[in-house]
Amino acid sequence: MNKTDYFSVKLVNNELVFIDQTLLPFEEKYVTTSNYERIAGAIERLEIRGAPAIGIAAAYALALSQKEFFDPILFQNVYTRLKSTRPTAVNLFWALNRVKAITDNYSTKDFLHNEIFNLLINEAKVIHLEDEEMCRLIGINGLSLFTKKMNVLTHCNTGKLATGGDGTAFSVIKSAFNNNLINHVYADETRPLFQGSRLTAFELHKNEIPFSVLPDSAAASLFSSGKIDIVITGADRISRNGDTANKIGTYNLAVLANYHAVPFYIAAPSSTIDLACNNGSEIPIEQRNKNEVLGIFPENELTKSIAVYNPSFDITPSNLITGIITEKRIFNFPYSF
Amino acid sequence: MNKTDYFSVKLVNNELVFIDQTLLPFEEKYVTTSNYERIAGAIERLEIRGAPAIGIAAAYALALSQKEFFDPILFQNVYTRLKSTRPTAVNLFWALNRVKAITDNYSTKDFLHNEIFNLLINEAKVIHLEDEEMCRLIGINGLSLFTKKMNVLTHCNTGKLATGGDGTAFSVIKSAFNNNLINHVYADETRPLFQGSRLTAFELHKNEIPFSVLPDSAAASLFSSGKIDIVITGADRISRNGDTANKIGTYNLAVLANYHAVPFYIAAPSSTIDLACNNGSEIPIEQRNKNEVLGIFPENELTKSIAVYNPSFDITPSNLITGIITEKRIFNFPYSF
Repeated sequence: MNKTDYFSVKLVNNELVFIDQTLLPFEEKYVTTSNYERIAGAIERLEIRGAPAIGIAAAYALALSQKEFFDPILFQNVYTRLKSTRPTAVNLFWALNRVKAITDNYSTKDFLHNEIFNLLINEAKVIHLEDEEMCRLIGINGLSLFTKKMNVLTHCNTGKLATGGDGTAFSVIKSAFNNNLINHVYADETRPLFQGSRLTAFELHKNEIPFSVLPDSAAASLFSSGKIDIVITGADRISRNGDTANKIGTYNLAVLANYHAVPFYIAAPSSTIDLACNNGSEIPIEQRNKNEVLGIFPENELTKSIAVYNPSFDITPSNLITGIITEKRIFNFPYSF
Repeated sequence: MNKTDYFSVKLVNNELVFIDQTLLPFEEKYVTTSNYERIAGAIERLEIRGAPAIGIAAAYALALSQKEFFDPILFQNVYTRLKSTRPTAVNLFWALNRVKAITDNYSTKDFLHNEIFNLLINEAKVIHLEDEEMCRLIGINGLSLFTKKMNVLTHCNTGKLATGGDGTAFSVIKSAFNNNLINHVYADETRPLFQGSRLTAFELHKNEIPFSVLPDSAAASLFSSGKIDIVITGADRISRNGDTANKIGTYNLAVLANYHAVPFYIAAPSSTIDLACNNGSEIPIEQRNKNEVLGIFPENELTKSIAVYNPSFDITPSNLITGIITEKRIFNFPYSF
């Protein structure tokens, strides 16, 4: 495997191979399984993470659960189980529904068992290939924002690890770098799970893009010293009006960018846009375990008694988002998709 | 020692006793020493931290260095050594200069050695007692901001551990709590060194004040959901125009407070105000070691090569500060001290 040859999820001989992201950047360990419960657990534990990658993995898991024989009751149970793994990622529901639609659109009685499996797994493969292509197009569409060699601030992880291709915000950074339009990338460490200092640092290093990591709260001083030319992050769900749910801390950056008159962009495949969701207030926010915040300490009487506010996401209102870069084009406020 | 009976620094039998804050909240270990180099190292390693506590500890250390006999050359060397421990904390220089002024104001030839030591150590004691009284007055002066039971957001640690008394911002919170004017305290964990989740959590717990800790970047979503009534932090240095250097992330909160129309207050003894410093651009910002940010990970090829932006402080411009609570009174923008 050469230096940049890594991936989040891949189908190999009708088994899912995924990199365990909780071990990165210290160990590049790939897990091979066709067990849907193993994959559901991997999504819950963030071994697989990133909205597009979650959708692809879940689509494969749902199809693979029918590898031996097609069982409509099991199929429905697996669909429900996978849907429950993360409440915010709309790509997850979207990808699962696409695989499920196969069984809705065809009368399964007309097919042999292995033919049904082939239809299901092909749909998952198509979702994966489409995502790869969307990542490529997002990178190309984002290029127009780079009028000179620029400093980019990003948050969380949005690269190959988070998607089926080169990423969302990361794909924009990568294509800008390949066109000699990146001066420096600033990557928030992204508490509590350090997706920035673990995963984005890993990907920037692999791609030899110059970067620094920083504590999330230090971004403000970078803005005030004029070191940030543009902010680009990913998205977990975008509502019809453009309000965007993304990793906790994204809204913080949007407020800072607004105050310092720095453009703030979201990059996401259009499957992240949930037209059924009118605005940000309709997006459920996952509250995660307090141990994600306190787990770096040994447990004692105090840490056991501490209450922790640990939402996985925050909502950035659309008026703070300069533009949303999709595989189709860049949309601008006010949003009409 | 009863539940709330803890302290940062104390003089006992002409030795300095300090709690090693790097071990909190897991171990309450007190160190006893009269060795100035041990104390200088403790300040550098943040075993002793918090602008007022640093000043007090340094004053004691300078005096204690002359315990056996008065040596003007050693005295000057110790003064220089202690001054070099932290570049931003103006209380440090202020406290050291007060002790040094004793030797300037008296002709040391007129005194016996032990008389000089008594003068020096008494000046350090006075600095400590004055700080204790300033903390008490800051707490009383801050009470007027609480018009009802309120939710307070604070950053870093500003309590007994950071000062010679009940603290600065923490003293305001404590006196408000004692007057039944605190609903809930939100304490930023304060990356990279977790002064919030380690030290402020320890102090809030000891004082039985209801609180939650949160990742620094999650504060933005608390603001947008209307859960923050007031922000109060400490200060490391305040310039003549009110621009304030404080723990990295303070400026971030000031921008958020401004955007959400929430009052933002600094609480500090007036010794933190550096009239020789015209504005924030004249305050030097300490860049600290990258291991503070990456040290939670095992070292590998990647972490060794990563660049880290790790300033200890940021500058909050005075126009974002609603008021500065001192032992004298609350000052308001535009500032004239």
